[in-house]
Amino acid sequence: MIPASLRWQGAAPGRPGAGVLELIDQTLLPAWLEWVACRDVDTLVEAIRALRVRGAPAIGIAGAYGLAVAAGEAVRDGLPPAPARAHVLARAEQLACARPTAVNLRWAVERVVAVLSGLPDHTSAQGLADAALAEARAIHAEDQRLCAAIGRHGAAVLPAGGVLTHCNTGALATGGDGTALAVITTAWDQGRRFDVFADETRPLFQGARLTAWELVERGIPVTVLVDAAAGQLLRTGRIGACLVGADRITANGDTANKIGTYGLAVLAEAHGVPFFVAAPSSTFDLSLAAGDDIPIEERAAAEVLRPLGVQAAPERARAYNPAFDVTPARLITGIITEHGVIAPVTRDAIAAMVSASPPMSAR
Amino acid sequence: MIPASLRWQGAAPGRPGAGVLELIDQTLLPAWLEWVACRDVDTLVEAIRALRVRGAPAIGIAGAYGLAVAAGEAVRDGLPPAPARAHVLARAEQLACARPTAVNLRWAVERVVAVLSGLPDHTSAQGLADAALAEARAIHAEDQRLCAAIGRHGAAVLPAGGVLTHCNTGALATGGDGTALAVITTAWDQGRRFDVFADETRPLFQGARLTAWELVERGIPVTVLVDAAAGQLLRTGRIGACLVGADRITANGDTANKIGTYGLAVLAEAHGVPFFVAAPSSTFDLSLAAGDDIPIEERAAAEVLRPLGVQAAPERARAYNPAFDVTPARLITGIITEHGVIAPVTRDAIAAMVSASPPMSAR
Repeated sequence: MIPASLRWQGAAPGRPGAGVLELIDQTLLPAWLEWVACRDVDTLVEAIRALRVRGAPAIGIAGAYGLAVAAGEAVRDGLPPAPARAHVLARAEQLACARPTAVNLRWAVERVVAVLSGLPDHTSAQGLADAALAEARAIHAEDQRLCAAIGRHGAAVLPAGGVLTHCNTGALATGGDGTALAVITTAWDQGRRFDVFADETRPLFQGARLTAWELVERGIPVTVLVDAAAGQLLRTGRIGACLVGADRITANGDTANKIGTYGLAVLAEAHGVPFFVAAPSSTFDLSLAAGDDIPIEERAAAEVLRPLGVQAAPERARAYNPAFDVTPARLITGIITEHGVIAPVTRDAIAAMVSASPPMSAR
Repeated sequence: MIPASLRWQGAAPGRPGAGVLELIDQTLLPAWLEWVACRDVDTLVEAIRALRVRGAPAIGIAGAYGLAVAAGEAVRDGLPPAPARAHVLARAEQLACARPTAVNLRWAVERVVAVLSGLPDHTSAQGLADAALAEARAIHAEDQRLCAAIGRHGAAVLPAGGVLTHCNTGALATGGDGTALAVITTAWDQGRRFDVFADETRPLFQGARLTAWELVERGIPVTVLVDAAAGQLLRTGRIGACLVGADRITANGDTANKIGTYGLAVLAEAHGVPFFVAAPSSTFDLSLAAGDDIPIEERAAAEVLRPLGVQAAPERARAYNPAFDVTPARLITGIITEHGVIAPVTRDAIAAMVSASPPMSAR
C-alpha cells in the first residue's frame, strides 16, 4: 500500500453520505494497520495526545478536520447558530492546545477559524460544518502539493552517499508524501540509489516503527540503528547527508524537532556531513526570535521507563523525557521548503522566503 | 542488597565442599534477580556472549574463574596431566574469544594461563584447578581494590553539578563497586549530593535496567533518559560532568566503549562539560597505537529491531548494530585509573602511568 496518515471520505457531518475523520493509529504500526474513526473532538484530542496521529503537518490537518468534527457535534445536538459557533470556537482552542510544540496545529486550526469567522453570524451549525470541511480539505490538498514540492527541491540538493534520517517525516507525518522522507522517496523515484538509514528514535520508535515501515512498503531498503549509533555510522563515512523534519522553526532558523535531532546535528557538523531540515513554510513561527523561546513538551515518564509497554527500569527510577530539542540554525546546512531551499540559513533569507513567496494555495 | 556481578563460594572443583562460578543473569534485571551456575565452560561462554555477565572487568574476572571451571571439567573427566593441561588451554582460547572488543577478558585469561604455565608438566588436573581458582580469586580481589581506588581518585576530581553516565559501570560490570559508577557512589558516600542521570543505553538498556537498579538499591536517586535526550539535557546546564567506563583504551588514549559514548563525548565538548573515562589499567592495550585498530563487535539485528523482545520494526527492515564506538582521546578530559587520573590524556602520560606504577597486587 501507499502509506497515508488520515482521510475524510464522504460529505460533511449532517449531510447525506456524511463522512468521518479517520486516522491510522500509528501507535499500533507496524504490527497492526488500524484506522480510528473520530466522530467527536474528544476522540481526536486523545488521538493527538497519544500520538495515534503525529507529525507536525499531519497534526495540523487533523486539527483542521477537527473543526468539521466539532461543527458536526453542534449539528447533532441541534444547536442554534450562536451556541454552535461558540461550541466550535471552544473546541478549536481545545484542539490547538492538544500538543504545545508543533506550530502547524495552531496554524491550521486558526486558518479554519478565520474562515468560519468570515461567515455571517446567522450561519447554521450545518453551514459551519460545510465550511470547516471545505477548508480542511483545502489544507489537506495543499499539504499534498507542499510535500511534492519539498521532495523535488530536496532531491535537487541531496548530495551523493547514504542518507540518515531521524523520527518519521513521511506520509504518516503529513497529508502527502512527507517532508524529509519525501526528499528520499522523490530522489529514489528519480532513479537514484543510495543507502537509507533510519534512527529508531526513542522513546516512541517512530523511526523503527513508522519510517522503516513506510520505506519497506515503498520497496526502498532501509537499515535501522539505535539513536546512539549515529556517531559511529557517521565515522564510517557512509553518510552523505542527514535529513530531518521540523515541528517549529523560529525567525532565525533555530529548529525544534524530535528529541535527538540536536545531537545528530552536532555530530553531523563534527563529521562535515550536510544537515538538512525539510518543512513546509507553515512550520516557521516568525513571532519567535530564536529557539530558546520555543516551549518544549515534556511527556510521560512511562515512555522512557516502559519501552513498548515492557518495564525496563526499576520502579523507583525517575525519567527525563523532553519530546523535542532545538537545533541552532548554525548547524543547519539548509532548510528545504515548498518554495525552495534556504541556504545558508539566515534571518533575512527566512524572512524573504516566507513573506515574499505566495502560499501554494494562491498560485 | 549491595549489587554484585558474580561469586565463587566454596573450594576448587574436585575438592570437598567444591564451589561453582555463579553469575547474576543481567539480562533478567531488574525484573528478576537470578543467579546462573556455570558448571562447564560452554555455559559460561554462552553467558558472556548473551551478556548475562557483561562489563569489561566483570567479563575478565568471569573468564579467569572460567579456567578453574575448565580444570574442573578435566578433573571430572579423569584426564591425566598432559591432556588436562591441553584441555584447559583450549578452553582458555575459547573463553578469550567470547567477546572481541573488551581487552580485560583476554588479559585475565592470559594471566591465569601464565600461572598454570609456570606449574610443572606433571601437575594434575586437580592441581590446575586449585591454581586457577587461586589466581582468579586474586584477580577478583584485586578488582575490588581497583574499583575502590578508582572511586576515590574520581571523586576527588568530580566537578560540581549533575552527573550523566552511559551504560552500566557499577558492581554489575566489575568484581567490586564499579568504575565510573564507583566514582558516583564514592562521592555520594562522602556526603556530596548531586543529580545522577543515566542514559538508558540502547540497544540493551544497561543504563535503564542495570545502572538505575544499582543506584536505586543503594538509595541514590536516579533519572533515566533516552540516549538521544543527552544533548537537550546538556543544553539545560544541569550537568557538571559526564562519566563513562571503557572496554579498551589504546596507547594514545582513544577509548572503545558502549555504543553512544562517542556521541556523548562530542556533545560534552560542544557544551564545555568535562568528559571522564574511568577504567582499571588492565583496560589499556598499549599494543594498539590508536582507536582505528580496535575491532568493533557487531551484534545481532534483533537487539535493534526487537527491543526487550517486542518487534518494533517491520520484518523486512535491516539493522546496523555496532556494540561499541571509539572516542578520540582529544575529547576525553581525564582517564581515572586505580593509580590516579591521567589528565590531559597523552601518549606519554598513559605510558608513564601504566608502566611506572606497580600493579595493585604488588603494593
